[in-house]
Amino acid sequence: MHTIKDIQKLISEEILKEISLLNESAPKNLYQPIAYTLAMGGKRLRPVMVLLACNLFTDQIEKAIPAAVAIEAFHNFTLLHDDIMDEADVRRNCATVHKKYNRNIAILSGDAMSIMAYRYLQKSETADLGSMFSLFSQTALEVCEGQQLDMDFETVMDVSIPEYLNMIRLKTAVLLACSLKMGALAANAPERIADLLYAFGINLGIAFQLQDDLLDVFADQKKFGKKIGGDIVSNKKTFLLLKALELSAPDTKKELLEWIDKKEFDAPEKIKAFRRIYTNLNIKEITINSIEEFYQSAINIWNEIDLGLDTKSELLQLAHTIMDRDH
Amino acid sequence: MHTIKDIQKLISEEILKEISLLNESAPKNLYQPIAYTLAMGGKRLRPVMVLLACNLFTDQIEKAIPAAVAIEAFHNFTLLHDDIMDEADVRRNCATVHKKYNRNIAILSGDAMSIMAYRYLQKSETADLGSMFSLFSQTALEVCEGQQLDMDFETVMDVSIPEYLNMIRLKTAVLLACSLKMGALAANAPERIADLLYAFGINLGIAFQLQDDLLDVFADQKKFGKKIGGDIVSNKKTFLLLKALELSAPDTKKELLEWIDKKEFDAPEKIKAFRRIYTNLNIKEITINSIEEFYQSAINIWNEIDLGLDTKSELLQLAHTIMDRDH
Repeated sequence: MHTIKDIQKLISEEILKEISLLNESAPKNLYQPIAYTLAMGGKRLRPVMVLLACNLFTDQIEKAIPAAVAIEAFHNFTLLHDDIMDEADVRRNCATVHKKYNRNIAILSGDAMSIMAYRYLQKSETADLGSMFSLFSQTALEVCEGQQLDMDFETVMDVSIPEYLNMIRLKTAVLLACSLKMGALAANAPERIADLLYAFGINLGIAFQLQDDLLDVFADQKKFGKKIGGDIVSNKKTFLLLKALELSAPDTKKELLEWIDKKEFDAPEKIKAFRRIYTNLNIKEITINSIEEFYQSAINIWNEIDLGLDTKSELLQLAHTIMDRDH
Repeated sequence: MHTIKDIQKLISEEILKEISLLNESAPKNLYQPIAYTLAMGGKRLRPVMVLLACNLFTDQIEKAIPAAVAIEAFHNFTLLHDDIMDEADVRRNCATVHKKYNRNIAILSGDAMSIMAYRYLQKSETADLGSMFSLFSQTALEVCEGQQLDMDFETVMDVSIPEYLNMIRLKTAVLLACSLKMGALAANAPERIADLLYAFGINLGIAFQLQDDLLDVFADQKKFGKKIGGDIVSNKKTFLLLKALELSAPDTKKELLEWIDKKEFDAPEKIKAFRRIYTNLNIKEITINSIEEFYQSAINIWNEIDLGLDTKSELLQLAHTIMDRDH
């Protein structure tokens, strides 16, 4: 069995190889932005999940490397195009592609990157390539649906909690779930277990996103990578805001909506006001309960996977790690 | 054997069915722009080529419908994103997607459209789906390369004719060639013949694009769909302009470059000046010769395909038709 650390090293090396190839490819204005995007790094969470899932069934995890690279390429493609749509200047302390190059190059290199994801996937030496392609396309389309819903939510105030959960399922959870199932498919695992891993990934992914929403407001700034309150400043419709709008009495709701409407404001003051309202409405505890609910659902599904405890401990360890940042 | 007209009708009906499904899909802001783009129409040249190529080998052309729809979806996706990059407001007399909706919706629905192309392709009931996927991804990536080269050429003056021919091969010809080979693969045709059809498509595609360059300058406005001189006004580096820059004496070259540098000018005057220079340099005849050369290469390859004359006449008829608009 491979450790998380081993697997992170393996996938980093594989991605470095791809980056070298990309840097030698022409036209440079097409392939260098792709190499640049892949080189930005991040935690490589999704490809690690592919390989850990594969490793539940076989030690020959190299079988799952093409799928792992494919999913990382697809994920980075979505970040590249999302950054254009959000007009974000910085990602992971680097200039975004449309800032470093230009918008047209960012659109086109993103397009090429999504096609390359299919090419990586096709390198899989698996009997059932058809299932892998189906899962990949279905997931990719759902991620687009999630992104569109997220954009739609920017202009409507009455987003319900079930609508919000559906959006984060599509935008975030399905790709984590797909990563796990892809690893299982690469190992020719039984369909029933592949599907359980998928369901585990969905619940873990929703818990993960809700925790992200929570940390934006209540994280310890010293431990938290991003600036606290970013979602509040940008009026992002998070679980916390939607829950607060749902539970607040008319005058508090009015106060929230007034803050949201303001074009000019003092950011720390707005963050302070939101935190006060959230605290009065018990939003932190409600969100933690919801996170625990989805996380517990994930663990319950996990326990249905009867593969013997020690063969699944690394993946479960990863789940603990990503959920245990701070709260 | 099916006629071109039958096949056009068949593919139009299939695409209409897909448009209906798309119009019922949610989120609406993701799927309606895709339906809108597909409904804009055009000649459906590429899917017709898929089905005609399939029909060289079998009368059961329904086998090739998924591939035909996939290629039409991919082609329309490239138009959608190209229109954002070119900031084009109108296509086929309709508002472009980024004008009718907005830029972010255009980026994202294009992304989804390219994924849907893979989903359509996967519906093919062919033994060798792997080959179809390889061909499709390879082609799609080459189309991106061609588009990037085309954008790169905007800012350099010394583009050679071989560099230009390589760009139009990638941007235009490979998708026509892929359409023909895809039809052959859907029919389980022998690899040698599928490859000959591909090579036929490359040469036909280059001839087709060179003719497009020629018609922009020397078409009969009554028969020509677009406005004459558009490439001249926008300084597009066409075969004609590059050849003129190559062949012109220093003072004529200086005149061309001065026109290209001018930010403000009278369009009819610029078009007139270019036509005069082109006529003096024999550019029309040189371009026609080059078109004939590629077209003749296509026909020579065609003649190597030993399937018996009447089984290939409809596709050859289409080649004649698309090359015979005006000159």
